[in-house]
Amino acid sequence: MKRLEKVLCPKSIALIGASRKEGSLGKKILESILRLPFKGKIYPINPKADFIEEIKVYSAVSALPEVPDLAIILLPAQMVLDCLDELGQAGIKNVVVISAGFKETGAEGLEREKQLIEKAHQYEMNLLGPNCMGIFNTDPQVMFNGTFSPTLPNRGHIAFISQSGALGVGVMELAAHTDLGFSVFVSTGNKADINDTDVLEFLQDDANTQVVTMYLESIDDPDQFRKICSKMVALKPVLAVKAGRTLSGTKAASSHTGALANPEYIVDGFLKQCGVIRYAQLQDLFDAARALAAQPLPKGPRVAVVTNAGGPAILASDTLEESGLQLAALNPKTISRLQEILPAEAAVKNPVDMIASADHQIYHDTLEIILADEGVDAVLLIIVKPPINTTPLKIVQSLEALVHNCGKTILTVLMAQNDEHGGFEHFKALQIPVYAYPEAGAKALGALWQYKQIQERFRKSEAVVSAPQSDEVLLSGPGAQNKQVPIKDLIELLQSYDIKSAPFIISDNFYKIKSFHNKTGNKLVLKIANEQIIHKTEAGLLKLGMETEKEVKKAFDELYKKALIHLPPGIAPLFMAQKQIHHGIELVLGGKRDAQFGAVLMVGIGGIFIEVVKDVSFRIAPVNAYEAKEMLSELRSQVVLNGFRGLPAVDRDSLAYTIQQFSLLLAEHPEITEMDLNPIIWSGSEKEALVVDVRATVQ
Amino acid sequence: MKRLEKVLCPKSIALIGASRKEGSLGKKILESILRLPFKGKIYPINPKADFIEEIKVYSAVSALPEVPDLAIILLPAQMVLDCLDELGQAGIKNVVVISAGFKETGAEGLEREKQLIEKAHQYEMNLLGPNCMGIFNTDPQVMFNGTFSPTLPNRGHIAFISQSGALGVGVMELAAHTDLGFSVFVSTGNKADINDTDVLEFLQDDANTQVVTMYLESIDDPDQFRKICSKMVALKPVLAVKAGRTLSGTKAASSHTGALANPEYIVDGFLKQCGVIRYAQLQDLFDAARALAAQPLPKGPRVAVVTNAGGPAILASDTLEESGLQLAALNPKTISRLQEILPAEAAVKNPVDMIASADHQIYHDTLEIILADEGVDAVLLIIVKPPINTTPLKIVQSLEALVHNCGKTILTVLMAQNDEHGGFEHFKALQIPVYAYPEAGAKALGALWQYKQIQERFRKSEAVVSAPQSDEVLLSGPGAQNKQVPIKDLIELLQSYDIKSAPFIISDNFYKIKSFHNKTGNKLVLKIANEQIIHKTEAGLLKLGMETEKEVKKAFDELYKKALIHLPPGIAPLFMAQKQIHHGIELVLGGKRDAQFGAVLMVGIGGIFIEVVKDVSFRIAPVNAYEAKEMLSELRSQVVLNGFRGLPAVDRDSLAYTIQQFSLLLAEHPEITEMDLNPIIWSGSEKEALVVDVRATVQ
Repeated sequence: MKRLEKVLCPKSIALIGASRKEGSLGKKILESILRLPFKGKIYPINPKADFIEEIKVYSAVSALPEVPDLAIILLPAQMVLDCLDELGQAGIKNVVVISAGFKETGAEGLEREKQLIEKAHQYEMNLLGPNCMGIFNTDPQVMFNGTFSPTLPNRGHIAFISQSGALGVGVMELAAHTDLGFSVFVSTGNKADINDTDVLEFLQDDANTQVVTMYLESIDDPDQFRKICSKMVALKPVLAVKAGRTLSGTKAASSHTGALANPEYIVDGFLKQCGVIRYAQLQDLFDAARALAAQPLPKGPRVAVVTNAGGPAILASDTLEESGLQLAALNPKTISRLQEILPAEAAVKNPVDMIASADHQIYHDTLEIILADEGVDAVLLIIVKPPINTTPLKIVQSLEALVHNCGKTILTVLMAQNDEHGGFEHFKALQIPVYAYPEAGAKALGALWQYKQIQERFRKSEAVVSAPQSDEVLLSGPGAQNKQVPIKDLIELLQSYDIKSAPFIISDNFYKIKSFHNKTGNKLVLKIANEQIIHKTEAGLLKLGMETEKEVKKAFDELYKKALIHLPPGIAPLFMAQKQIHHGIELVLGGKRDAQFGAVLMVGIGGIFIEVVKDVSFRIAPVNAYEAKEMLSELRSQVVLNGFRGLPAVDRDSLAYTIQQFSLLLAEHPEITEMDLNPIIWSGSEKEALVVDVRATVQ
Repeated sequence: MKRLEKVLCPKSIALIGASRKEGSLGKKILESILRLPFKGKIYPINPKADFIEEIKVYSAVSALPEVPDLAIILLPAQMVLDCLDELGQAGIKNVVVISAGFKETGAEGLEREKQLIEKAHQYEMNLLGPNCMGIFNTDPQVMFNGTFSPTLPNRGHIAFISQSGALGVGVMELAAHTDLGFSVFVSTGNKADINDTDVLEFLQDDANTQVVTMYLESIDDPDQFRKICSKMVALKPVLAVKAGRTLSGTKAASSHTGALANPEYIVDGFLKQCGVIRYAQLQDLFDAARALAAQPLPKGPRVAVVTNAGGPAILASDTLEESGLQLAALNPKTISRLQEILPAEAAVKNPVDMIASADHQIYHDTLEIILADEGVDAVLLIIVKPPINTTPLKIVQSLEALVHNCGKTILTVLMAQNDEHGGFEHFKALQIPVYAYPEAGAKALGALWQYKQIQERFRKSEAVVSAPQSDEVLLSGPGAQNKQVPIKDLIELLQSYDIKSAPFIISDNFYKIKSFHNKTGNKLVLKIANEQIIHKTEAGLLKLGMETEKEVKKAFDELYKKALIHLPPGIAPLFMAQKQIHHGIELVLGGKRDAQFGAVLMVGIGGIFIEVVKDVSFRIAPVNAYEAKEMLSELRSQVVLNGFRGLPAVDRDSLAYTIQQFSLLLAEHPEITEMDLNPIIWSGSEKEALVVDVRATVQ
């Protein structure tokens, strides 16, 4: 059984702190439960009342005739811990703590929350909250509204998980009388015990939920979050607004639910890896959710815009292209059929502008022709309230038979706030979402296409990279704490992950270096390799481009002298001689351990692309080949990878393999706190990426 | 008198094509005119009717008792030209042509439109349209609604100029029953005669208009547009959605109103120069317009967020920072006063979260404390419909005395669609705009701050650069058509604009070059200067870095030989020897003539920044110093200008001066079709930018 089964589908509820007082929360929540109305049993608990709203009240949990599935606590914070003991002793296993006054309020509250968690573990309870706004589930089998929302939630197929309870109330208010309908709402509050991943686990198999939406202030268990999302998005779309994009937002979030700050540069890539579609604005998120809950996914990106007004169609066209869609090239037959039925002033290319005189018959006939065109995957229907000849209601009525099971995606833009004739309701009944502005409709269509691609990707098994299994700590020998690892060891470690380095030897012997140089038959790089010196390049302990033996000897002697200055007395300079890789594009692969997210992988193009343009991409390790290539394609300077200033093009598949292997190394070696392959050069002659320098620190 | 005076403020109107037929456009427009209701005289013209809606009908314009101020033509396209003759002969000087079937429909229509324009000029008429949706003016002195909008427009202080008439109708529909109120609406249609600049000219002094909004498919007279906007934005904000950001949008626009495609890379910089705030989405534009029409501009960027719900405040915080605003740091006194009145669970830092229990008294007291804080320039008030204790109406009523003339900017987010108590109406009466989503409110606040900065900038006279006066054609000597100009002439031209070049001589004599080299005491650049050879660098006719006389001689000899291959027989190689400028940041200044916009100026940072990152900024020449610096700050790699890899920081003022001078050169020399200073190097030792190479073609 899923953890939240009885929290979200209780058959009986105890309400601790139910009240007769008008306007109190203890009264409001009872009213909410009765209003949906709840199918199970309600046990209000209050030592001072006999009946509330004609429901029998019990003096204590111990007096109940059965052990209820769920208890909801509305008491002041300082009474909650004792109450939990009482519930635990009565055998209650599922609790929602509405009460605020925990970690969001400072040190005292934090201590109280710690005790709350301990008690929940002690009694093996599933605890939602504290500092939350409740839950509802509109499943006809359940019908449970345990929130304070003054408005009855619209029923529908969108689940909403919100780290802010009040935001949930606000959204329900905004959703009233629209086609935004909800299956499940969970206010997660401080996430002391139950967090988003538990809710996602429930929603995965909830037949009543078709789309999952989230408002997040923090991501608390990234590993589990990613695992469950990866499965979920193969079945249902997950959309999220993650607050804290800016410093102001992050600070505000921390004082709200005591949310941990998730570094923004990690969050964006992480959510992509989870298959979650991220929005900056709530309205965009719900506009997309409405479309995803109502319409089939388009088979392709080719959209026809059908309109009675030019301007809105042009605005839609801009936004469609910006959303990754394209205006369908209509079949010549389609065009000639349109010419037959439309007036001479109409535009029969896509967008199809039927002009202002279009009545419902014209809408019907045009859409019929468009839907029959095999080059059209989706239709954006635009209606500016017609001045003459027809009404939005007549239009939608005329389309009814046409759109029923037509198999293509249809969204509507109806530029009107009022609709005296009931067109809105009729569109809703036909499951065609309506948008007020053309850009909003176009963006929502973009979300359908975006999810279609995510779904396909996550349905392929290759999308999920198995989590690291190895507990082996290769690099943490004695004395290895928080220090640099010798380069030789790192190169061997890389080798074991099939990541190759430029040929090299490490030696203090000039003759060995000379002989290595003769064998490679290439320019040489010479650097000091003693691990006692950290910033070798900055100290000038590196020389490039030596070709003749004389040059090598000169470099050797110079570096030897310089190294002595930096080395402790009695330590002889150690050299690393390396075949110089030239004629290749330099990349940087980096890894850094984040306390929450684990190993964070960075990919960038070397030199000023990183230094000036900050052109890098981040993901959580490990990544699969798809993700590795996505990282490359995110780089703004990625055109460089196609060949640049005479340098050969990079083989992206091969490079992605190296990235994937490096990410695996990072994931399997949690003792590495930082590691950089800088540079790793794509060698045109070797047809592979070769590490030229590597550094790592371990703990 | 302004051109549109009688079009927008007519005292008498002839309606050519008025009709008795229910549902016809000729009937609808009469109904619209009567509904506002119009203060002047209405003369319906129809040979077949005596009365329509109890108004006397005339058989022809010639039968009218007076010459009306304005005629509106609703006839089919093929009757419009004859009608224009009739109107012209009757002495009518202002005409609105609603009829479609002109240049938007192809060759025949284009021809008809040309004739229309000719006739308008012949009779000295002001002609709006064709293919337009009419106009309205809600000024109490005028009250004229000549549109087909089925909804009566909300009266207010926002003017809307729309190249799509139907879009105007759609917006009026969406605005019904909101606080989005309009002063003037003009559907410009095909802009055969009257265009946006004429409307802007009218609006500049229209006391009823406080904010100007535009939907543009094309910018038709950029010069005039810029001139009038520059004056306007010192007084009133101008906001625009310019469609055609993408290829799809551009194509769609061209088949709609036959709009010319404006290159997108020009439009964005151009609108900035005009002081116009550009939006990608209509909804954002009108959200901003509502705020600008209702509230005073903030004195600074410091915002306090006051809320009864945490989540929406966090979302607002992110968007505020992204909109260039900041969360105000509250005064310690403010914080301690807030602590006195708010419950322990409240957050007294900014955002101030009064939590869900906040009633109207708490809203009042908190806002009073916040408004008294001198470190707060603006307040974003957030209300999630409170579950207990109060209603939005009670909240707004309690704030009435407080916000009246408080001198600070206040916007409200009220997350509710319905408001049974009338809170929305009351906010409207208090001139406080209400937004449904926190991000929308934060963005609108961003618009107020953005306009505040624009206003200040354009109120300074330096903001307006005078248009080029010179008609002198310096570069177009005989045979100069479409060809490269000799570099010597270009360097002289630059010199006359106070733009310096690296020291050089042009000579075919090695001894002169040698002597020049000795004088400069620097490394030398040597290149072939014969104008017969265009791509000198590509042909290898350039050598850098010669230090000794021997090196110079060797380079001279090599180039001499190579040049002979490229030169016509009998022409001797000509050399340009130049002092090599090193240790400086390379920039590129470019100019290109656009058929619509004139000289387009480009600024970029040389090398891969331009080549790979496409890091360039565009403006129309000439630019002033502010604009030149804005161009530099738009470069994504601009950090390079602060000093880079040991290169000295650029003096931005000095560089901006050079940019300004180059833009003036471009503007004053319309014969230049293309000109590049590539590179122009900021020399740390000379403390100025020196042109190293320049090319130009003239026509």
